[in-house]
Amino acid sequence: MTLRVTVWNENVHEREEPAVAERYPNGIHGAVAAPLADEGHDVWTATLGEPEHGLTEEVLAETDVLVWWSHCANDEVSDEVATRVVDRVHGGMGFVPLHSGKNSKPFKRLMGTTCDIKYRHGGERERVWVADPGHPIADGLGESFEIPATETYGEPYDVPEPDRTVFISWFEGGEVFRSGLCYRRGRGRIFAFRPGHEEYPILHQAEVKQVIRNAVEWAAPNEGATVNWGEVEPAESLED
Amino acid sequence: MTLRVTVWNENVHEREEPAVAERYPNGIHGAVAAPLADEGHDVWTATLGEPEHGLTEEVLAETDVLVWWSHCANDEVSDEVATRVVDRVHGGMGFVPLHSGKNSKPFKRLMGTTCDIKYRHGGERERVWVADPGHPIADGLGESFEIPATETYGEPYDVPEPDRTVFISWFEGGEVFRSGLCYRRGRGRIFAFRPGHEEYPILHQAEVKQVIRNAVEWAAPNEGATVNWGEVEPAESLED
Amino acid sequence: MTLRVTVWNENVHEREEPAVAERYPNGIHGAVAAPLADEGHDVWTATLGEPEHGLTEEVLAETDVLVWWSHCANDEVSDEVATRVVDRVHGGMGFVPLHSGKNSKPFKRLMGTTCDIKYRHGGERERVWVADPGHPIADGLGESFEIPATETYGEPYDVPEPDRTVFISWFEGGEVFRSGLCYRRGRGRIFAFRPGHEEYPILHQAEVKQVIRNAVEWAAPNEGATVNWGEVEPAESLED
Amino acid sequence: MTLRVTVWNENVHEREEPAVAERYPNGIHGAVAAPLADEGHDVWTATLGEPEHGLTEEVLAETDVLVWWSHCANDEVSDEVATRVVDRVHGGMGFVPLHSGKNSKPFKRLMGTTCDIKYRHGGERERVWVADPGHPIADGLGESFEIPATETYGEPYDVPEPDRTVFISWFEGGEVFRSGLCYRRGRGRIFAFRPGHEEYPILHQAEVKQVIRNAVEWAAPNEGATVNWGEVEPAESLED
Repeated sequence: MTLRVTVWNENVHEREEPAVAERYPNGIHGAVAAPLADEGHDVWTATLGEPEHGLTEEVLAETDVLVWWSHCANDEVSDEVATRVVDRVHGGMGFVPLHSGKNSKPFKRLMGTTCDIKYRHGGERERVWVADPGHPIADGLGESFEIPATETYGEPYDVPEPDRTVFISWFEGGEVFRSGLCYRRGRGRIFAFRPGHEEYPILHQAEVKQVIRNAVEWAAPNEGATVNWGEVEPAESLED
Repeated sequence: MTLRVTVWNENVHEREEPAVAERYPNGIHGAVAAPLADEGHDVWTATLGEPEHGLTEEVLAETDVLVWWSHCANDEVSDEVATRVVDRVHGGMGFVPLHSGKNSKPFKRLMGTTCDIKYRHGGERERVWVADPGHPIADGLGESFEIPATETYGEPYDVPEPDRTVFISWFEGGEVFRSGLCYRRGRGRIFAFRPGHEEYPILHQAEVKQVIRNAVEWAAPNEGATVNWGEVEPAESLED
Repeated sequence: MTLRVTVWNENVHEREEPAVAERYPNGIHGAVAAPLADEGHDVWTATLGEPEHGLTEEVLAETDVLVWWSHCANDEVSDEVATRVVDRVHGGMGFVPLHSGKNSKPFKRLMGTTCDIKYRHGGERERVWVADPGHPIADGLGESFEIPATETYGEPYDVPEPDRTVFISWFEGGEVFRSGLCYRRGRGRIFAFRPGHEEYPILHQAEVKQVIRNAVEWAAPNEGATVNWGEVEPAESLED
Repeated sequence: MTLRVTVWNENVHEREEPAVAERYPNGIHGAVAAPLADEGHDVWTATLGEPEHGLTEEVLAETDVLVWWSHCANDEVSDEVATRVVDRVHGGMGFVPLHSGKNSKPFKRLMGTTCDIKYRHGGERERVWVADPGHPIADGLGESFEIPATETYGEPYDVPEPDRTVFISWFEGGEVFRSGLCYRRGRGRIFAFRPGHEEYPILHQAEVKQVIRNAVEWAAPNEGATVNWGEVEPAESLED
């Protein structure tokens, strides 16, 4: 199944920090997009600095799944574009926020909570456990995988109780975190995936790419049923 | 357990429509507040027309549970007050939107969905079924109760899958509706209750008052655990 | 995607009641199997009277999704076969109990509840509403469909809160019922679908066949992640 | 609120292993019961070796919440008593299995899954994180607590997706585990709590006692609504 995937990235660290630019020479969006294109999907990328952040009505209308990376510039996303993304999720577009994309306006609006966490920049080792081995987003994985060095996140994670908890991470410094959570809002599927910190080559790691590939397929829209919202005639005759 | 309950009402229909004023001489807020006060709770009321809609920082800080009725003036609630309500729910305040309060800014922000429905002003009979007889919000009820005439709502109801479905309504005209849904956002409990249309004396009905009383007790805040959000030291020593 | 589907039927009413035999000349299992075979799936059927009820280790090992119709003979299914079905669901086999299949040993064991309901043999009209129009089991449906005459079921339905409520039924006599519920147990997906009473040609109805087709595809197993249960070595070195 | 609490313990390790007997001179049941009695509850204890394991119809009928510790003798509990416990949970009795009580017949029947895990007898340090700080079972706790040495459990934990994930544990050896999970089955509330291994004085630890106290209060039955199961007359007149 060929999907139309848009990979959005704020693209700020890559332009301001040489180490990040070296790690991700095509940008984080480029690193995320490449394996999805290799999979046969129609992939394009968009970044904060483009007009309307590259997320015009036209682009979103033709996007099946939006993968989203953001961190330091979450507040620079316009309310209008954030609303547009949320509306498209309601309409069925899949949404896969990575790492601090959990703090993005669209994700926070879809959750209705603060999405607050604990965190630490320590370069600690993370072990990502599959808590739901039957979930399609875990397809092809072993029982856990290791990220050698990363920013640590810690519970509690202030999100609504998820539909499914696919991954739970262990951190060297003693924290745990629900690293892969599934939601639905309206017709749209959402998968929030924790890994992806820009200071390490995490998005080049095979297991991380595998999870993103799986998540994109899982989040694809389906036909569903038709609905007539608003004022309606009675479904049953009231005359008899 | 004495709770501090604020009953908020837009208080528009009562001022503009004599039939509503006659039905609810103390306002819908008065009708909702009275049985809660009889129960021994500390109850006060607030309406749209007051400064800050009567929902100042001080009032909300001293509110355990906010019961909310709104309909035609949902858009007139200021963004600032809506945000304040949402923040207090995150902090633990219970929130009980009645009827079209489902379209209020706070509820829609807490849900992250459109909250769209089908509806019809037909004065049809509604039968509210208890779908979850073990839930405390159903305490003291029979297996169903009848509302002789009301506005009809119909599925689909565009909300996130609820934590619990307490009530499902049957309507004469052929529709069904999940009329009592439980959620949690942050530390706050939310119970969305469908009945309460202003054109009928529904809020005077014994079963409806019973449900609201139960919901207020269910939605009361608890102590919970302490949390340190943000940047933290490792929980475990990294030196060993 | 071609799936290996087993349609199981107790096949009692067809043998004992001429009207049912006339309505379902190839048995209820035949009526359920035909449209699935037309869809390109590898479909076979099994019935209570066969050795091991036709559900041998071999048959189940090669079944992706088991569709199950049962009613008056639920207690005649052996404990051994019921356990075998449950084990295969845990291992990933999809399970789609129809109508009173909700009272089958496998479904009740998977739910952990009584699965009790209210019911009435009245030949009343049922309107099945799509409560979750974004769900793949609703693909291709309108907002509701009508079953002209059926046995009535009524809430409360004593099952665990479902993962998703796809359908809610309205009945002429005033009841409502959650007619399509999704669960997962272990790796297996379960969809409990209410329609299918043997006294009416419900399983010949286009929308019902559409739902069963959708459910079979939805319930198909996936690869998932590998797991090592039981006693394990530490994932992290304890020596450092 | 004074509750009638029964603490059940298989009471095998205490009789066969001097170290356990020394650690828990009044049995594990005694250690669990004492702080609940101090709290003002009516507490009694029952063990495997008593007639009907001490869980007669009469005892269960007068039990609001059953706290359950079991490990090596899970298979020695009779099917009849297990069924009796399950039936009472359906009827509203709270159920709090501790540690390997997750492998007890009643818990496994209520879950409908294998309840399998990974484990290791290593005496490792466990850090129990509060994942849901707004939950009443977390009342009065800090953000985490440490168990200095214990048996390790590891994900995946083969249980249905819980209603709420209250605790997630971190282990020295690299595993994580959802250590406090809430469910409802019928009218009964269930809280599965991981800590309590017999080789360490875990049940004497203040935080563990606090959690069990909180869980008992949370799991208490409520009145609920009345229900008429089975064949019923129409709720609405079919004559009009």
